[in-house]
Amino acid sequence: MTDVAVIGASMTDFGQREEWVVELLSQAGMECLEDAGVEPHEIDHLYTSNMASGEFEGQTGIMNAVAHDLGALPAYTQRVDQTSSSGGAGIYAAWQSVASGASDMTLLVGGEKMTHRTTGEATDVIASITHPVEYKHGVTLPSFAGLTARLYLDKYDAPRESLARVAVKNHENGVDNPHAQFQKEITMETALESPIVADPLRLYDFCPITDGSAALMFCPVEVAEEYTDEYVRIAGVGGATDTHVVHERADPTTMGGVVESGEQAYEMSGYGPDDIDVAELHDMFTILEFLQSEGLGFFEEGHAWEAVEEGITERDGELPINTSGGLKSKGHPLGASGVAQGVEIYEQLMGEAGPRQVEADVGLCCNVGGFGNCVITTIVEASS
Amino acid sequence: MTDVAVIGASMTDFGQREEWVVELLSQAGMECLEDAGVEPHEIDHLYTSNMASGEFEGQTGIMNAVAHDLGALPAYTQRVDQTSSSGGAGIYAAWQSVASGASDMTLLVGGEKMTHRTTGEATDVIASITHPVEYKHGVTLPSFAGLTARLYLDKYDAPRESLARVAVKNHENGVDNPHAQFQKEITMETALESPIVADPLRLYDFCPITDGSAALMFCPVEVAEEYTDEYVRIAGVGGATDTHVVHERADPTTMGGVVESGEQAYEMSGYGPDDIDVAELHDMFTILEFLQSEGLGFFEEGHAWEAVEEGITERDGELPINTSGGLKSKGHPLGASGVAQGVEIYEQLMGEAGPRQVEADVGLCCNVGGFGNCVITTIVEASS
Repeated sequence: MTDVAVIGASMTDFGQREEWVVELLSQAGMECLEDAGVEPHEIDHLYTSNMASGEFEGQTGIMNAVAHDLGALPAYTQRVDQTSSSGGAGIYAAWQSVASGASDMTLLVGGEKMTHRTTGEATDVIASITHPVEYKHGVTLPSFAGLTARLYLDKYDAPRESLARVAVKNHENGVDNPHAQFQKEITMETALESPIVADPLRLYDFCPITDGSAALMFCPVEVAEEYTDEYVRIAGVGGATDTHVVHERADPTTMGGVVESGEQAYEMSGYGPDDIDVAELHDMFTILEFLQSEGLGFFEEGHAWEAVEEGITERDGELPINTSGGLKSKGHPLGASGVAQGVEIYEQLMGEAGPRQVEADVGLCCNVGGFGNCVITTIVEASS
Repeated sequence: MTDVAVIGASMTDFGQREEWVVELLSQAGMECLEDAGVEPHEIDHLYTSNMASGEFEGQTGIMNAVAHDLGALPAYTQRVDQTSSSGGAGIYAAWQSVASGASDMTLLVGGEKMTHRTTGEATDVIASITHPVEYKHGVTLPSFAGLTARLYLDKYDAPRESLARVAVKNHENGVDNPHAQFQKEITMETALESPIVADPLRLYDFCPITDGSAALMFCPVEVAEEYTDEYVRIAGVGGATDTHVVHERADPTTMGGVVESGEQAYEMSGYGPDDIDVAELHDMFTILEFLQSEGLGFFEEGHAWEAVEEGITERDGELPINTSGGLKSKGHPLGASGVAQGVEIYEQLMGEAGPRQVEADVGLCCNVGGFGNCVITTIVEASS
């Protein structure tokens, strides 16, 4: 198994963009080539993480368009879809291409263009991730989030305010991320008084609909050393599924895919939860940050809300979570999000995170598809 | 790099099916598990090749549904999209998962459900594979095929009849494939007198619109030997892209992606064109069988038509091509086709092809996406 390095990272501004998805993907790709000091013709594999360009834009074959636009022909190219965890799945595919010995230089780009569609249209496409027995009866992803949040608060006697605190923290981090969709702080009052979406969750418990793209450059460690003295290494990666029908789960407050993918990533890396210095979790809904930080073993079951209340997950806390602003304030262009998590961890480990910088040698990303239907966890370590 | 074996194969009947794509995928998956003697819980990776379930059926996240239906949780799952070569890309993804050491048992299922949509709707989705600068002006894939066929016939002074002969040959092979959509012979007259679609190509130069699914089981060679004495081995695999805008190609009668992916597969396997005993080529249009068999080095440029006229590519010829019936008579459910090519080569090398059986130790599949925008070539060898 070839040891895999990441030698470059980039992301476009997230938010409402005029460009179509191929242009966004190519923009992040070009910037990543420049960041890595790699020429387009040196790329032999190009993975494009994207969930739904066909549904959102009526355009398929986008991976070929990106390969063409970047001047990367005749590089192999493929679109990676794992719904909202397509970006994380792209990291896994890129890792495999290098680890298998097939590739000496793999570019991963992930992106989505969504804001030109109405919220209803976007919600329809996203709802189709789940089983028709659920979504066709109105149980969309926000509904699952509401039901699960209610269960969690009740089961662990957690205050409603602890969820709002996740939103406040992540918005605070987003202020210092020049690519974030929302670069503004919010107050607890704003979060707690925003309109109800799926009781007990309110508007500020949800990530926005976003356009954007992100990219990472992968190669064998020995090749990395020809390009740069400083890089990061993929220490562990794991992916797992949970029931496609959410109502079949014994306890929806435990995300089986998070637990399983985390265990795989820990085993492969030799690290454990206590070794993680910084983490990007999939806070599509505030409640998910609790469930992932418990599933990954950062906190005991039912105690993540306390950790957030105590400030442990803030930027200057013991385990900073979502220093990028998270999906909550950075935005969530489906296929881009998992890649952008990797970009944040890369920048933190390389010391390139500017005002968001924390002390970190080992970082973790957790990218969630559906309502935990599929999950990818990646552990990254600094090279020196 | 772990040596990769294939220990099971299956396909559903191709044609007009009542089931939706998840049911078709699960059916092929179940049959493949049985063929391989593998239990669902032994699968650790599950790849689903599919181009457009979102566009055709309004359903995404199908890989999770299949993992759930097969009882394969918590196996990793991902959808592989490379347009009409999604199946071949699935073979490559499955190969990587095993070759990288990440997987001990990977199931690949590929499928598409298309016939419930009108031909116009299906053509719209398929056209969106290519660049809008072309398809929005009416240059759909059949148009490219017509233009390229005209160029080929003119350039090499080849008779129009040679194209019809490809259709006649592949229909003849399809008669003996119980899963083929069309199990009937056609005459040269039928082919040559069928309605013009894109001059000089007529109806019988085109594959049909099809529903169906196929599956293959991959594992390390050393694991294969715990399950079976007889299996096949992936000897070489390569993937490459050509310009996304077809009109930028210097000469459309040379498919750059075919040449490049073939060279990669030959190099990795140590085999050359003369070593191939049987091949499945992507005859979505009859002209493509000529272009691929030349691009892969089976025949000199401009001479494939003579080889077909001389019967070299017939079942009892020197190099049988499309013994399964090809896309032409077996049908072309986009995401399934590349996998089904692998199923035919598996059955030929295992001696399980019944009345279609030829003498073969080394087989090749070539799966084409778009109009050669991306191509995967796989070389398979018998284990003994």
